[in-house]
Amino acid sequence: MQHYFLNQSIKVGQLISIPTEVKKHWIKVMRASDGTKAEFVDDHERVFIGELVQSSTTASIKVLCEKAFNAELPFSVTIVCGVSKNDKADWIVRKATEMGVDRVIFFASEWSIAKWPLNRVQKKLSRLNTIALSAAEQSHRNRVPLVDYQPKLESIIAADYSQKIVAYEESAKAGEESMLHHCINQMHLGDSLVAVFGPEGGIAPSEIALLESYGFKKAGLGPRILRTETAPLYLLAAISAFSELS
Amino acid sequence: MQHYFLNQSIKVGQLISIPTEVKKHWIKVMRASDGTKAEFVDDHERVFIGELVQSSTTASIKVLCEKAFNAELPFSVTIVCGVSKNDKADWIVRKATEMGVDRVIFFASEWSIAKWPLNRVQKKLSRLNTIALSAAEQSHRNRVPLVDYQPKLESIIAADYSQKIVAYEESAKAGEESMLHHCINQMHLGDSLVAVFGPEGGIAPSEIALLESYGFKKAGLGPRILRTETAPLYLLAAISAFSELS
Repeated sequence: MQHYFLNQSIKVGQLISIPTEVKKHWIKVMRASDGTKAEFVDDHERVFIGELVQSSTTASIKVLCEKAFNAELPFSVTIVCGVSKNDKADWIVRKATEMGVDRVIFFASEWSIAKWPLNRVQKKLSRLNTIALSAAEQSHRNRVPLVDYQPKLESIIAADYSQKIVAYEESAKAGEESMLHHCINQMHLGDSLVAVFGPEGGIAPSEIALLESYGFKKAGLGPRILRTETAPLYLLAAISAFSELS
Repeated sequence: MQHYFLNQSIKVGQLISIPTEVKKHWIKVMRASDGTKAEFVDDHERVFIGELVQSSTTASIKVLCEKAFNAELPFSVTIVCGVSKNDKADWIVRKATEMGVDRVIFFASEWSIAKWPLNRVQKKLSRLNTIALSAAEQSHRNRVPLVDYQPKLESIIAADYSQKIVAYEESAKAGEESMLHHCINQMHLGDSLVAVFGPEGGIAPSEIALLESYGFKKAGLGPRILRTETAPLYLLAAISAFSELS
């Protein structure tokens, strides 16, 4: 069944005019016809089942029932990633959305080879937020993650989070293997976790020092060296495993 | 430091003639010069530090010391994936290698839209095994995973494994969330786990029945719908988290 986000309140029994983007995908691409059902998420992350009702001039959703369903992680996870090369940002956003991320923030890290010129940031973010929407639909999330960019790491990490970690290859090499589990064990429903990841070249010692001064803990993600785009996925899957599977 | 697999025994103090492929990458691409150090893995998964020794006519590795290092998961994980579209096989092999997989077997599943024509299987496998080698070097593994293809699911699943699971979306939808953790908890050092994943269209009921007749357990991988190429990575990260991080 298709799954769409409507940025509005939804009530059972309501007849809703279909937003243009949803209409384009559901009717034109997926060839929905009269009576085809889909899931629709309201602006409070609630999921409803609706069916297509068409007349000669209009296409509407008839809301049939609410579906009690929560696909969100028990706590909010923000990943903060150094800008990386090629289409890795697309990939990180798509896969992290599937894995349950709440927010993705890219930053211009000291060792980033790639740069985001200021005059192209808005266009890049618009594209990445569209990818997040599409991935959230496909993975049947209750929420669309927000993708953002901040040139300065300090302005991101000064925000308030319950747990703060930095994925640090040197810690992993030194055998650090308990910090992530420890942090997750201390979290409760509705808490927030932020995790910082370097770009291809890694995270600079001065950035590590800055993060530590803000209370970030260095965490290893297992003994294998993970690429910059793989590490956030490992983290999200580990968080899901510890909090949703055990 | 670069990391290369030499398919031979290695002893400290030995002078080894550099294999062509290693020479091409280490000297031509990475521009190693006299005295540059790298890691070399022998045919028993042991890691050594060696340095480049060049004369006007030869290039050799002088083996300096052994590095006690194990980047392998505590047990062997085989993933069995329905053939999927586009370059997803490349992607699965690359990322699963980073995440510690031991063996990847593709099979012609009932609902696979993509097919591997028999006359192209060898070429595809050769390419995928090269990807596995390259990813194993980059993630500093002790072992290069083996990539294989079997047209029939039954010939794969009849083999002996300590734990056998099938990632089943319907189980996840029904709220199954304990099986994976349960299976991993029962495993000991050196045991083996096999996990089967369907292609884009999912796994057919007849395949589920066959798997169950061979003792496979249906496991959910969290409440979000994962794409066919994401699910094996979730599994591997969860196995690492449960066995290497806690």
